[in-house]
Amino acid sequence: MTEILHGRAIADSIKADVAALARELSESGIDPRLAVVLIGDDPASRIYTASIEKSAARAGITVSVVEPAASVGGDGVAAVLRKLDRDPEVHGIIVQQPLPAGIPTAVIEEVSPEKDVDGSTTRSAGLVALGRPAFAPCTAGAVVEMLVRSGVEISGRHVVIVGRSPVVGRPLALLLLRKEDAGNATVTVCHSRTVDLERHTRSADILVAAMGRPEAIRGHMVGEGAVVVDVGINRLEDASAPKGYRVVGDVAFDEVVGKAAAVTEVPGGVGSMTTALLLLHTVRAAGAQSGHGEGGGGRFG
Amino acid sequence: MTEILHGRAIADSIKADVAALARELSESGIDPRLAVVLIGDDPASRIYTASIEKSAARAGITVSVVEPAASVGGDGVAAVLRKLDRDPEVHGIIVQQPLPAGIPTAVIEEVSPEKDVDGSTTRSAGLVALGRPAFAPCTAGAVVEMLVRSGVEISGRHVVIVGRSPVVGRPLALLLLRKEDAGNATVTVCHSRTVDLERHTRSADILVAAMGRPEAIRGHMVGEGAVVVDVGINRLEDASAPKGYRVVGDVAFDEVVGKAAAVTEVPGGVGSMTTALLLLHTVRAAGAQSGHGEGGGGRFG
Repeated sequence: MTEILHGRAIADSIKADVAALARELSESGIDPRLAVVLIGDDPASRIYTASIEKSAARAGITVSVVEPAASVGGDGVAAVLRKLDRDPEVHGIIVQQPLPAGIPTAVIEEVSPEKDVDGSTTRSAGLVALGRPAFAPCTAGAVVEMLVRSGVEISGRHVVIVGRSPVVGRPLALLLLRKEDAGNATVTVCHSRTVDLERHTRSADILVAAMGRPEAIRGHMVGEGAVVVDVGINRLEDASAPKGYRVVGDVAFDEVVGKAAAVTEVPGGVGSMTTALLLLHTVRAAGAQSGHGEGGGGRFG
Repeated sequence: MTEILHGRAIADSIKADVAALARELSESGIDPRLAVVLIGDDPASRIYTASIEKSAARAGITVSVVEPAASVGGDGVAAVLRKLDRDPEVHGIIVQQPLPAGIPTAVIEEVSPEKDVDGSTTRSAGLVALGRPAFAPCTAGAVVEMLVRSGVEISGRHVVIVGRSPVVGRPLALLLLRKEDAGNATVTVCHSRTVDLERHTRSADILVAAMGRPEAIRGHMVGEGAVVVDVGINRLEDASAPKGYRVVGDVAFDEVVGKAAAVTEVPGGVGSMTTALLLLHTVRAAGAQSGHGEGGGGRFG
């Protein structure tokens, strides 16, 4: 029997925790607040922002959507971010990407690690790399939460990650190496240049597919009893589907069911947890910044 | 036949390259300069500084030893570092550690990644983590140079690193994952919490021992034909030795000879290459800062 791991259900459990932590902070007079910085008119960013606002409202987190005009340029956006970063009422900052032409990605570096709840800055990446407290990109964090909340032991297990992107594979490897209960894994990172990929994937206790290639992890590549986490979200043309396409992961789901101990579904897997992670990071940031430690959700990172 | 890899000889070949690159820069009117910042009177730091000065002079790199009094405190040291960082005549900066009590390690963050030739700052660690150009800590860089200059193919090979320290294991894993010829490895990181370490070490094409435990990698843990790089430098008490101790690596050298394709010696291995890497980074930094590209050694990172 292969257990199906449902990202939406885990996202709900995270959001319930966030709501409880936000309530605790609120009782101490702290109003957890996330600033979403939205520049230009990227439609996907607008949809994501609306979805953050909705989830945040339910969890008791206030969202300020800040929309500098693209015409203010890189310096103007940097000034807006510096102001938010200094504002004690703002605990977390996310800058929606992609940025419009003319706004360099480097503006994000104005955000301090303490408020960088999407783990987007070089300094956050450095702290994660050094094994020090910091927020990792939400998707990497979502994989860890998926495992922890599904009761999967991480410490001492062999995790094989396929994919070395700066937002998933690399930070996830570094998170899983941390000296803590949700870390202490032995970690292998594979990628497009890996020779004999199957040998590596079959040896995994926990296999994470994050290379962005539809159904590239086939059944014979998965060891009996492995836990398989699928981070991929790919569109495949499918004339028989209502929208003309269907969404599949990086894992050939049907081939893995019956063999793996557990597997995440796509859609409805890790991808549906990122907003929950953003809110979790925000409430932790608020706790840490206001001196409310573990109890108040004040874990930084 | 096991080839013995001699760190001192490789360090000499690096220093010869550095000298050639420094000469090229000098002909274009650029005097490559390294600032060594030495605070307090740690004897080991003084010895290391003197050794850097000697090697640098031979390679045509000017060293400025800057010695702020410990009494100027963290703010005073930070001001000194900011000044060096802005000085166009200074291309590389290394701050000798440990810092005396009262000077927080965070002062190092004043150094820009472009001049951080020992890869000591959080931003450098972040850039390395993201796979972007930056200098990694010299010991991690030394392992890569050791492999490249010994003609060991890295791309596509399985590298198993034992040790997850922020100055060796973690940055080395990230360097070896980069999308370049001296990267593209499949990388596994093991450590004290790894279950069945032997299974992992035996599967390595290239095995890097960097856990700081004397002779912990035994012969049976190494696969036939593997390349073994020993980063460890440990003192073992030995009444029969002239100094009352002998220096051993993390690998049981005698057990590995005859089995591995190649193995580094200790002493005289990776540890004897760090100064050469510091100079290589400095001349690359000088090339990059003065707009001399590949030809002038201007590779950044």
